[in-house]
Amino acid sequence: MQLNEDERIDDLLADQTMQIIQSPTKFAFSIDAVLLADFTTTPKTRGKILDLCSGNAVIPLLLSRRSNVPIIGVEIQARLYEMACRSIEINHLNHQIDMIHGDLKDMPNHFKNNKFDLVTVNPPYFQTKNKNHQNHNDYLTIARHEIYCTLEDVVQSSSKLVKSGGKVAMVHRPSRFVDIITLFRQYKIEPKRVRFVYPKEGKEANILLIEGIRDGNPDLKLLPPLYAFDEEGNYTKEVEGILYGRKK
Amino acid sequence: MQLNEDERIDDLLADQTMQIIQSPTKFAFSIDAVLLADFTTTPKTRGKILDLCSGNAVIPLLLSRRSNVPIIGVEIQARLYEMACRSIEINHLNHQIDMIHGDLKDMPNHFKNNKFDLVTVNPPYFQTKNKNHQNHNDYLTIARHEIYCTLEDVVQSSSKLVKSGGKVAMVHRPSRFVDIITLFRQYKIEPKRVRFVYPKEGKEANILLIEGIRDGNPDLKLLPPLYAFDEEGNYTKEVEGILYGRKK
Repeated sequence: MQLNEDERIDDLLADQTMQIIQSPTKFAFSIDAVLLADFTTTPKTRGKILDLCSGNAVIPLLLSRRSNVPIIGVEIQARLYEMACRSIEINHLNHQIDMIHGDLKDMPNHFKNNKFDLVTVNPPYFQTKNKNHQNHNDYLTIARHEIYCTLEDVVQSSSKLVKSGGKVAMVHRPSRFVDIITLFRQYKIEPKRVRFVYPKEGKEANILLIEGIRDGNPDLKLLPPLYAFDEEGNYTKEVEGILYGRKK
Repeated sequence: MQLNEDERIDDLLADQTMQIIQSPTKFAFSIDAVLLADFTTTPKTRGKILDLCSGNAVIPLLLSRRSNVPIIGVEIQARLYEMACRSIEINHLNHQIDMIHGDLKDMPNHFKNNKFDLVTVNPPYFQTKNKNHQNHNDYLTIARHEIYCTLEDVVQSSSKLVKSGGKVAMVHRPSRFVDIITLFRQYKIEPKRVRFVYPKEGKEANILLIEGIRDGNPDLKLLPPLYAFDEEGNYTKEVEGILYGRKK
């Protein structure tokens, strides 16, 4: 496999069964994506999955471990799209995962009535009121800030791309929870399962995992909290299990 | 103090410093009210507090322990209003706590521009799609079901009764969280602090504590989870501290 300058091949999970191409200056996946892939309810043998803001395809790669359905990733940045394609290839997953180089806002028109059973997304977290960010269009800034898409763009496109009764799963910051809930409802994705991730006991949550159902009935479940680290600063058993890729 | 048939005097907190009149067939406070009184941010020496759906005044009584400001409770059921007045009297708190026998929906007109620094509310939890509940108008049913007020009535009245920059604090079920968030935003109460209470580790949350600020800026904090019971079925140290009325 050809690696470009600044790229490396990492183990995707601690069990060393999958690899992924990363780059410190372009894109490296975070624990957030791994937690989202673990959290979401995947169709196992029927249906199909779409992953928006796919980056180096970390979520499609992870989901392929517990689902046999076709998975499509969408990434707007050409260099990351291309890293994703090579990552899929080194894991021999071309039969299951396809990448599209494109803008998520164009996907509803692209797919038309071809809708998905699950849409996953780890979108940019930060609003770009700061003009410096908006002019600072390097790879990492685009992945982290709402430059090419806002939260509303993400929710609106997800809503159009998912089947009625299908699921939309997102990872984000708890500070945006109220915006996410409001937009989900506005675009007819009823929030059904929420899990907050806390860095450790006694701290405020720093990661939000949420899954909604298109046209679902109101009835939210608050799952048990997930703690990332124990008091000694080691991963908790549950997070270690997720990072080691234990099968569900 | 005169007790009516079916009434008893209970200790309000385990430290036995306050008492409250209760009745198994009319009204007895729940842990939810105690948790809300502990959770909310109270004005200490300036301003004033309003408690809606006040029942036997459990929340005004508890708040008086850590605030010196005037507190007004509103209760629609005459028998509960009257129990509340006697509970205030036995604790010698008539100088600080007043009760109003009335409908919360009438309070914005009653108070007009006389607005509050904090509005607390432990509203009826259950929607009354079931006609049996609607016709079954005993004391407990009214306290528990949305018969005299809906969630929207509660939020709308709270929004009108609180100052700009003042706080609204509510306890409810997590299943209604999305409705609450949506209504808070609709009535310009920005959710700022949320805490979920879990019966024990590994279980889904069963109580929601939420505080918003009228005309506040979006920025939600997810406080550490609160567990009610430990693995042996005893109250956790934190809940025990709350029930023992430890001062903050």
